[in-house]
Amino acid sequence: MASESGKLWGGRFVGAVDPIMEKFNASIAYDRHLWEVDVQGSKAYSRGLEKAGLLTKAEMDQILHGLDKVAEEWAQGTFKLNSNDEDIHTANERRLKELIGATAGKLHTGRSRNDQVVTDLRLWMRQTCSTLSGLLWELIRTMVDRAEAERDVLFPGYTHLQRAQPIRWSHWILSHAVALTRDSERLLEVRKRINVLPLGSGAIAGNPLGVDRELLRAELNFGAITLNSMDATSERDFVAEFLFWASLCMTHLSRMAEDLILYCTKEFSFVQLSDAYSTGSSLMPQKKNPDSLELIRSKAGRVFGRIHQENMGQALSPDMLATDLAYYLVRKGMPFRQAHEASGKAVFMAETKGVALNQLSLQELQTISPLFSGDVICVWDYGHSVEQYGALGGTARSSVDWQIRQVRALLQAQQA
Amino acid sequence: MASESGKLWGGRFVGAVDPIMEKFNASIAYDRHLWEVDVQGSKAYSRGLEKAGLLTKAEMDQILHGLDKVAEEWAQGTFKLNSNDEDIHTANERRLKELIGATAGKLHTGRSRNDQVVTDLRLWMRQTCSTLSGLLWELIRTMVDRAEAERDVLFPGYTHLQRAQPIRWSHWILSHAVALTRDSERLLEVRKRINVLPLGSGAIAGNPLGVDRELLRAELNFGAITLNSMDATSERDFVAEFLFWASLCMTHLSRMAEDLILYCTKEFSFVQLSDAYSTGSSLMPQKKNPDSLELIRSKAGRVFGRIHQENMGQALSPDMLATDLAYYLVRKGMPFRQAHEASGKAVFMAETKGVALNQLSLQELQTISPLFSGDVICVWDYGHSVEQYGALGGTARSSVDWQIRQVRALLQAQQA
Amino acid sequence: MASESGKLWGGRFVGAVDPIMEKFNASIAYDRHLWEVDVQGSKAYSRGLEKAGLLTKAEMDQILHGLDKVAEEWAQGTFKLNSNDEDIHTANERRLKELIGATAGKLHTGRSRNDQVVTDLRLWMRQTCSTLSGLLWELIRTMVDRAEAERDVLFPGYTHLQRAQPIRWSHWILSHAVALTRDSERLLEVRKRINVLPLGSGAIAGNPLGVDRELLRAELNFGAITLNSMDATSERDFVAEFLFWASLCMTHLSRMAEDLILYCTKEFSFVQLSDAYSTGSSLMPQKKNPDSLELIRSKAGRVFGRIHQENMGQALSPDMLATDLAYYLVRKGMPFRQAHEASGKAVFMAETKGVALNQLSLQELQTISPLFSGDVICVWDYGHSVEQYGALGGTARSSVDWQIRQVRALLQAQQA
Amino acid sequence: MASESGKLWGGRFVGAVDPIMEKFNASIAYDRHLWEVDVQGSKAYSRGLEKAGLLTKAEMDQILHGLDKVAEEWAQGTFKLNSNDEDIHTANERRLKELIGATAGKLHTGRSRNDQVVTDLRLWMRQTCSTLSGLLWELIRTMVDRAEAERDVLFPGYTHLQRAQPIRWSHWILSHAVALTRDSERLLEVRKRINVLPLGSGAIAGNPLGVDRELLRAELNFGAITLNSMDATSERDFVAEFLFWASLCMTHLSRMAEDLILYCTKEFSFVQLSDAYSTGSSLMPQKKNPDSLELIRSKAGRVFGRIHQENMGQALSPDMLATDLAYYLVRKGMPFRQAHEASGKAVFMAETKGVALNQLSLQELQTISPLFSGDVICVWDYGHSVEQYGALGGTARSSVDWQIRQVRALLQAQQA
Repeated sequence: MASESGKLWGGRFVGAVDPIMEKFNASIAYDRHLWEVDVQGSKAYSRGLEKAGLLTKAEMDQILHGLDKVAEEWAQGTFKLNSNDEDIHTANERRLKELIGATAGKLHTGRSRNDQVVTDLRLWMRQTCSTLSGLLWELIRTMVDRAEAERDVLFPGYTHLQRAQPIRWSHWILSHAVALTRDSERLLEVRKRINVLPLGSGAIAGNPLGVDRELLRAELNFGAITLNSMDATSERDFVAEFLFWASLCMTHLSRMAEDLILYCTKEFSFVQLSDAYSTGSSLMPQKKNPDSLELIRSKAGRVFGRIHQENMGQALSPDMLATDLAYYLVRKGMPFRQAHEASGKAVFMAETKGVALNQLSLQELQTISPLFSGDVICVWDYGHSVEQYGALGGTARSSVDWQIRQVRALLQAQQA
Repeated sequence: MASESGKLWGGRFVGAVDPIMEKFNASIAYDRHLWEVDVQGSKAYSRGLEKAGLLTKAEMDQILHGLDKVAEEWAQGTFKLNSNDEDIHTANERRLKELIGATAGKLHTGRSRNDQVVTDLRLWMRQTCSTLSGLLWELIRTMVDRAEAERDVLFPGYTHLQRAQPIRWSHWILSHAVALTRDSERLLEVRKRINVLPLGSGAIAGNPLGVDRELLRAELNFGAITLNSMDATSERDFVAEFLFWASLCMTHLSRMAEDLILYCTKEFSFVQLSDAYSTGSSLMPQKKNPDSLELIRSKAGRVFGRIHQENMGQALSPDMLATDLAYYLVRKGMPFRQAHEASGKAVFMAETKGVALNQLSLQELQTISPLFSGDVICVWDYGHSVEQYGALGGTARSSVDWQIRQVRALLQAQQA
Repeated sequence: MASESGKLWGGRFVGAVDPIMEKFNASIAYDRHLWEVDVQGSKAYSRGLEKAGLLTKAEMDQILHGLDKVAEEWAQGTFKLNSNDEDIHTANERRLKELIGATAGKLHTGRSRNDQVVTDLRLWMRQTCSTLSGLLWELIRTMVDRAEAERDVLFPGYTHLQRAQPIRWSHWILSHAVALTRDSERLLEVRKRINVLPLGSGAIAGNPLGVDRELLRAELNFGAITLNSMDATSERDFVAEFLFWASLCMTHLSRMAEDLILYCTKEFSFVQLSDAYSTGSSLMPQKKNPDSLELIRSKAGRVFGRIHQENMGQALSPDMLATDLAYYLVRKGMPFRQAHEASGKAVFMAETKGVALNQLSLQELQTISPLFSGDVICVWDYGHSVEQYGALGGTARSSVDWQIRQVRALLQAQQA
Repeated sequence: MASESGKLWGGRFVGAVDPIMEKFNASIAYDRHLWEVDVQGSKAYSRGLEKAGLLTKAEMDQILHGLDKVAEEWAQGTFKLNSNDEDIHTANERRLKELIGATAGKLHTGRSRNDQVVTDLRLWMRQTCSTLSGLLWELIRTMVDRAEAERDVLFPGYTHLQRAQPIRWSHWILSHAVALTRDSERLLEVRKRINVLPLGSGAIAGNPLGVDRELLRAELNFGAITLNSMDATSERDFVAEFLFWASLCMTHLSRMAEDLILYCTKEFSFVQLSDAYSTGSSLMPQKKNPDSLELIRSKAGRVFGRIHQENMGQALSPDMLATDLAYYLVRKGMPFRQAHEASGKAVFMAETKGVALNQLSLQELQTISPLFSGDVICVWDYGHSVEQYGALGGTARSSVDWQIRQVRALLQAQQA
């Protein structure tokens, strides 16, 4: 007889199920991780049944006690799966019945497996979001601390991997920290939509037995209840949202890691990874590979700890001040487009002569524009260059300090 | 000479650019759609330059007037693209120079193309979000109106495409409307992150010339300004977010359309599409295809307008009340698992005898369980079945009314 | 000391590796499935080392014997993983050393882990391809057998889920079988590119110790050897190809399953699934869900076994012969476009009058076109309709027979 | 009346189609590119109709002549689209009717739009494949020529972006060329599956009018005909295959471009891009960006033309010979694992002392292993190191020459 199989369905079936079908249909290998939230959901539901008069107080207590025992077995690693346990819901109810007998059969009254699956999933993902939020905040805080400590280190900013303009090292750190604050904000939004109770939706039409969904919500500490029972049991928007969130967050971590991998090359030599986060080669004895750079979490600060400030400084070169040379002419009244052209010619002249841009003589510069005069010498100062970018968001020290304050305030607001 | 080419760069280049490279590099075919927001951004920036003392009032007025002329040409379709216009930014500035002369060369002072591209993109997407929000609200409102008007139509709810339980037709409509309210909520969040000003970030280091970013923000009506210039010019999170949003929203519309396509088949015959939204076959004269069902916007109400209520009613069958039969036994004290088993046996017995489930005699039912008695007859009423699902979110009339009120309140809150 | 850790690298490292890094870096949970091919590859390589004079005959025998012992432990489930076994290659070599002592350290001479990983992967995927080919051929053969046996069953062909034209049921089966023959052909091509030996490529520069790659190829029964050592160790085209192959094949199985799910609905009732491949609902006792229809392999024949031929016949309706009605006029000399229009008008007239298309009187038809005469009655025969489609690939019996022969010939050719 | 609209369907429709639906349904903006193959397909089909007796010779000539005229208008840019032309098939037949009158209405006899769409698509993609094959062959040939010419340039091979082993520059070029030969092979396989005639399949059931599909195949020069009419009109495997092919090929080009972008940085300075394939910055006058490196086609040879051989040589460093140092010990009888450990210790010792690996004294080396003796000096020769990798596929000159011959032979075989 079908019910002998322990399936949660079966009365209308006579033929035996093909063993391949059993295996194909089973999800216990994946959903066993939901054991804790499954018990949690069932405990809340048994309270709802009691309030609705479908369980006596004594029956409810028996079920609650039995469920605690089930959870204890999982926690201690003593829970034994049967070959018939097609999923965690079947397994837990089967074990409950062994522990407390026929009363276990009342637990599922008015509830569907759809109800259970989605309730469990939301409980589990809510916990995951909280964990990730904490780790993300810790990482951002570490990065902001480092940015504050190393505000006076200058290095080349790159575009298209070509040296572009001198910037502060902290400006680079903050550019990644700011991206992570968006991830943090988005995660809170996703969590809000996860934190909605579906239980009490039945298979499709709702719950017909007077179960109080507001009581279930309060028991499980959800922020709201779902509006429509068909939508509640079938929608998985929150899973898609979470996966999108994770992809975007990984993209940010990956971009940061890519920069660091480059800065770790012999050719750049800006950063050196500690042995603790490196791996070697089974063939080449000298290799030290920055494998860990995708492991960027709260320890990121330590990971990119040993920074080579002197190599950073040496990588700054006068041609990176070509923009400043153009601004020099702008300040003397030349329209920017002409100034850009004039500065570009100076770059070409220096390349042709094989000298650095700041080694062109005043006479040589004046063949390009008569607006050049002795004060052009002030352009060739990296520190001065960086300090110009004082507009909000720029790389001047005042602006970097402002960014640090802003990110700290954001963190505080999100944790509230 | 490079500057002759009209490129926004060129002083340091001597070799001619390969024509294939020109073509490969050009984006004007795509970004020409940004003409209006590009002019908008440039007007704001010229005000910023004037305030910073980099343009005189007269120069600013000359530029503003010229930009208005550029926009007018685009609006009237008289703007002529040159073969050298690699993108919309180059094209607009080139035209501005033709119109007002050398002063045009001052507009780009301290600004980078990165600045422009991302500012334009945010302005353009902000407008797109507003349009989509409006259409979405209109669609949801239409659906809620229909749900309210047709609350008394019952039809079969399906799971796995097999008939599951009788539900209200409005319950199906609302299940899709509720999904769309989540899209609407998400769209507001995406818009909030789009609505942040990047202008004033330069290429990478920031803006060195004292341009007031707060003024730019106010001019362009952004909600906030970006925190870090490197991040501001390179991040495209908001594009990824919008694309994700659109994918999820399309998934919802597609699911609704799939249901409707099925309900339009000869075999289901629940819904009939008007000719206005159907297409034919070039070969088979009798065909009328529901091609339009992916075109579901504010007219969805009209699209699924002609509903065949009588076919819906006929599709309800007694076996869909098997759950109710189980609940009948539960109410007489049988644990649900046993009741489910007993009801399943009744289904099997009816199938074997070739009769409908409600045609089993009381004697036959009593061979399955002695708890069956004369009042079992009350189970076979679809209307009564549906009315049981009174828990919030269920398909009972009171619950459907509650859903309608909730969705209406959500719409109102989001529009605030 | 680093070497104490059992890592395959370590001499140049002094700091301890962070335990999180160890965990993050480990792949043993996934690559343990490669145990058999890893041993296979190492055995071949030790033969290569012996031929190159880097192992004595005695050392090689010791290693071969030890590797056999390692494999035996895996096969019997007695292999014990250490916490330091970061991957299957490390684990197997660590165990080999425990079994045979220091000679184990010679096995990796001139070989890199890159070499091993990609060799193992290719061996493993080659085996997978062979298994899948066999299953696919079995499925296609079963389908062709069914198509042959049921050639005389007619049913409606659908487009846009609307009834289109009467076709043979076998024509539907063959449409899916033909798609699977393409999968079978593609799988052979993918396998050919998998079946290429990379071993002997080292980390990047090649093998410097005189190992004979042709010997390795022959030992491992590969069809060819890779051309370039850098490409050989880094490319994973064959993995991408296999995944694409699997996606496309799943798309075909999924399309077939979708059709069958629809044909299993109460509304269509063409096909009935046996209990052996169905599941029930934990809530609704009457439900029998076609969950298995994604499990379509060699048993597909049995899965869609119980076909309801009488329901199929009843689903044929005269409007599906509207194309034939147009062809009737074409045969009397009317251009097809006019004939299509005329037949469409007949459909509309019948719908308006509320009668079937074949119940329009001759007089009524003649109001549409005077070309209609008494012989129009011959159009209303489904069997006759189907037999018209005698062009190769069509649904006439002769063409279906031709398809069956073609698919059988393809199968035979691919197995050669 | 519907037929007035010029639609290819319409007799059974009475309501007007919503203009939004028209716009939503139209594909002319995309499929207009198919004009030439659409005419080609129609010409072949009219020959088929004539042979089947459905067109007289005179009618066929009239149609063929009209279709030539249609093609001529497209070629000369004088074809005028109507607002009712929903797709290229409608547009061409509408124009044909204007040109030759009612006979045009006979062209579609027994053919469906499904037939036409997929025939056109296959013709168009077949041509695309041929073009791409030619370009790919040209690129590979150019790369092989460069590899042959520059066999004697050595440079560092990298793994994890860390310097690994000295290799030949040609070895790097060939690693990318070999990947492209796989793309070339795959493209031929995809083309073979594209090159199959679907025409003559009708909407779903086949062609009922005696059209000879073998004649159509010969007219359109296809390699085979499709087996099943349902499959023929609905399958788009070949599109998915082509897109997969293109993605994989782009991945290869992208990997090569990424390497080159890195080699173009100031920090690596191995390669210098010519101005012809570079772009500048609208803000920073000194910038020269390698934007073109995704434009890698037959001109790749010229693109990476100016190679800085002296910088490559300077980038070789003694620690890259640590593997050779280990092999030195292996050759003296030490098992590889111990030799790897010993060489790693030498690397660590040199780093600690702040000297290059080859500057450790013999005494120092002997503290690590007594096997070191005076001949260790032979290890420190990059050219000698590279020449060791003589196994097939390695970086020794003989192996590189072998690779060049293999790739050339492959190209020749594929073009046959």
